[in-house]
Amino acid sequence: MTVRLHDYWRSSASWRVRIALALKGIAYDRVPVDLVAGDQRGAGHLALNPQGLVPVLEIDGLRLTQSLAILDYLDDTRPLPPLLPEGAVARAQARAVALAIACEIHPVSNLAVLARVEALAGPEARAAWNRDNIASGLTTVEAMLAATPGPFCHGGAPSMADCALIPQLYNAARWGVATADLPRITAIAEACANHPAFAAAHADNFNPSREARVMEDQR
Amino acid sequence: MTVRLHDYWRSSASWRVRIALALKGIAYDRVPVDLVAGDQRGAGHLALNPQGLVPVLEIDGLRLTQSLAILDYLDDTRPLPPLLPEGAVARAQARAVALAIACEIHPVSNLAVLARVEALAGPEARAAWNRDNIASGLTTVEAMLAATPGPFCHGGAPSMADCALIPQLYNAARWGVATADLPRITAIAEACANHPAFAAAHADNFNPSREARVMEDQR
Repeated sequence: MTVRLHDYWRSSASWRVRIALALKGIAYDRVPVDLVAGDQRGAGHLALNPQGLVPVLEIDGLRLTQSLAILDYLDDTRPLPPLLPEGAVARAQARAVALAIACEIHPVSNLAVLARVEALAGPEARAAWNRDNIASGLTTVEAMLAATPGPFCHGGAPSMADCALIPQLYNAARWGVATADLPRITAIAEACANHPAFAAAHADNFNPSREARVMEDQR
Repeated sequence: MTVRLHDYWRSSASWRVRIALALKGIAYDRVPVDLVAGDQRGAGHLALNPQGLVPVLEIDGLRLTQSLAILDYLDDTRPLPPLLPEGAVARAQARAVALAIACEIHPVSNLAVLARVEALAGPEARAAWNRDNIASGLTTVEAMLAATPGPFCHGGAPSMADCALIPQLYNAARWGVATADLPRITAIAEACANHPAFAAAHADNFNPSREARVMEDQR
């Protein structure tokens, strides 16, 4: 049965799942949902996911939502390679890093929240809100990572924490938040950049304008 | 070794952990952190948790943060009663509900975000922001719960999802968000209200003004 991922190329939560699928070696078809055009609020997508969010993963005859719940499902049903380190303490640390990104940084910078800030206080307030949120959140994550071994967020293999961190770093760069003064995060970003699953899942591979360009090149 | 929970009586994330500790029958000492007074940004608390957040759970010689990671740690190390239903599909559904609350509703209504909204646009904008966020979030959660059996969020026993839902419902009531038109959520709230672990963990038990009153009564 085909695995199908409904995603948006630049959505952090979608990207987490693309990394996990690549790490597990699970092939999938992609169904792009254009968040900027509002596809996520259309009847078709709401029938798939009443949350009006991406990602939605169709797998094993199910429709799964919430990226971190999807990662746990993949680990439950396809244990190798694991998305969490071994041992309860290590797992709690890796989960805490993933949640510090998914529950503290990401929701406060999502499209709907930023649109609301802009409606209340204008585009400059929106940009400042977003930059401050990402910068303070990543500084906190850097401090949390002092407790864990490298080169990835938790030891020698990528975990759920790296799946959450890498898309967040892309957003940091996109909004002009410097991260060069965060040495642990910088080293993790480098380790992930050299990993084939992270390369395969990268947002830029799925940028529709690039896809259009590639298709044009192939004519 | 004493288990110690650093919490704030009305913090949703703290409350989730209090419910889980009560469900597992784990005794603990409480260390109140006054979020309104700013204790969470003091050097003492930041040394415990660089995120400047509650809860922090001291257990097994560790300091754990991020409420949902703590719940998973408790399940990993003290499996009974479980905080997740049996089977990968049921677990994914229960986790998705917990995350829809912890990642979508709660962070957008936290104290720091609301203070920032008020600074940008005033107290009425803050109240509207908070009400709209909670109302739309709970409507979405109600729709998600159509996929799962009752009387709790997932079947006959409370799970991580109920630990997340109950504190969020308290906040809904506090900010005047009606939930009577959400039948599944209303029934879950009733099931939880009749469960001793949820009664023991309730915020009102830890309201400092009530605690002060009780101490006065006992003189």
